[in-house]
Amino acid sequence: MQFFSWWRSLASFRVRIALNLKGLTPEVINVDLLKGEQRAERYRKVNPQMLIPALIDEDGGPVLFQSMAIMEYLDDVHPHPNLLPSEPLARARVRALSGIVASDAHPLIVPRIRDYLEHELKLDEAARMKWIHHWLGEGMKAFEANLANSKETGRYCQNDAITMADICLVSHAVGCNFFKYDLTPYPTVRRIVETCMQDEAVSKAHPLKQPGAPAAA
Amino acid sequence: MQFFSWWRSLASFRVRIALNLKGLTPEVINVDLLKGEQRAERYRKVNPQMLIPALIDEDGGPVLFQSMAIMEYLDDVHPHPNLLPSEPLARARVRALSGIVASDAHPLIVPRIRDYLEHELKLDEAARMKWIHHWLGEGMKAFEANLANSKETGRYCQNDAITMADICLVSHAVGCNFFKYDLTPYPTVRRIVETCMQDEAVSKAHPLKQPGAPAAA
Repeated sequence: MQFFSWWRSLASFRVRIALNLKGLTPEVINVDLLKGEQRAERYRKVNPQMLIPALIDEDGGPVLFQSMAIMEYLDDVHPHPNLLPSEPLARARVRALSGIVASDAHPLIVPRIRDYLEHELKLDEAARMKWIHHWLGEGMKAFEANLANSKETGRYCQNDAITMADICLVSHAVGCNFFKYDLTPYPTVRRIVETCMQDEAVSKAHPLKQPGAPAAA
Repeated sequence: MQFFSWWRSLASFRVRIALNLKGLTPEVINVDLLKGEQRAERYRKVNPQMLIPALIDEDGGPVLFQSMAIMEYLDDVHPHPNLLPSEPLARARVRALSGIVASDAHPLIVPRIRDYLEHELKLDEAARMKWIHHWLGEGMKAFEANLANSKETGRYCQNDAITMADICLVSHAVGCNFFKYDLTPYPTVRRIVETCMQDEAVSKAHPLKQPGAPAAA
């Protein structure tokens, strides 16, 4: 199994947590987005969309892409521990919470968007940071509102087992830390993120613990 | 079953296709995003994130949100016809193709983003349209590259049955039409979208055929 990833990529972080939870140890191939390695011929052959993460499960097998699709695949093939509950309404809630991050919030702050804001729209750093904080916050507000108002919320987002929703939430919280977005207004989010970080599968997947990351937190 | 939707919403369009394919006929409640009805107290009680679509399957039951999560739910509960293939690698490809639209491209052009570009960044119409076309195009390029280069591509995105990937692709193609983004460079996309539109479950879900839509195409 080959996992194309980069330390700072929050979508890679999600898949890394899922791999750790399932005890899978793929070969990790770093693709440095800041150096533009995703646009190099070598990686374009892997994923023509030039985004990470990507996963090849078997030699010569197809390249899997999109973090949510990769996690669903891992859950299909390696169901223990499951990243989704078994009951359909609970599965829907977990997938919807995951979507707040993976579909609504995170796509708005990834490098290609920040590049567009800087180089095409010529926004200064303050305006770019305002954009980033705005959309990080919209995601966190939606997540907190759901968690705080649902009887399904437990030790983790959905009762007492880690699911994809927790994985997405943790990735978003770390993104907030990267961009110094204050999580004080989100107590349920903070409680669950802290609980998740006590799990070694989560904590050792942290971006700052990966090869290539800067030494200081 | 109650379906909170709006004619122009492409995410609502996706769920509407899925409902039609499965022969489900929920009560439809319109939430006009241009009038800001998503921010009204009445709808905020349904979905605090103020986004559509949302679905309530049973009276008093939870509100389902996020189009991908709703489609997965419908597929869990009403599996015939299935919107995902049964084989894990094929499921992963369908979900990843879906994610190109649902996670990468569409979130960048929704009303709340267009509002931010206009009112916060004060972009003129040309700059806003350039943004929209750029991200519509990035999605279509990625989709076309995958479709054109995969042996899995058939009559539809994944062999010969309609899946979530086709639903997402059709919604994105209709979005391109709304914003006059030319699909000529995407022959595989166009072929599959045209094939999908021959299915009545798809064609009758078209945004312009919904209540509230303008009379002309």
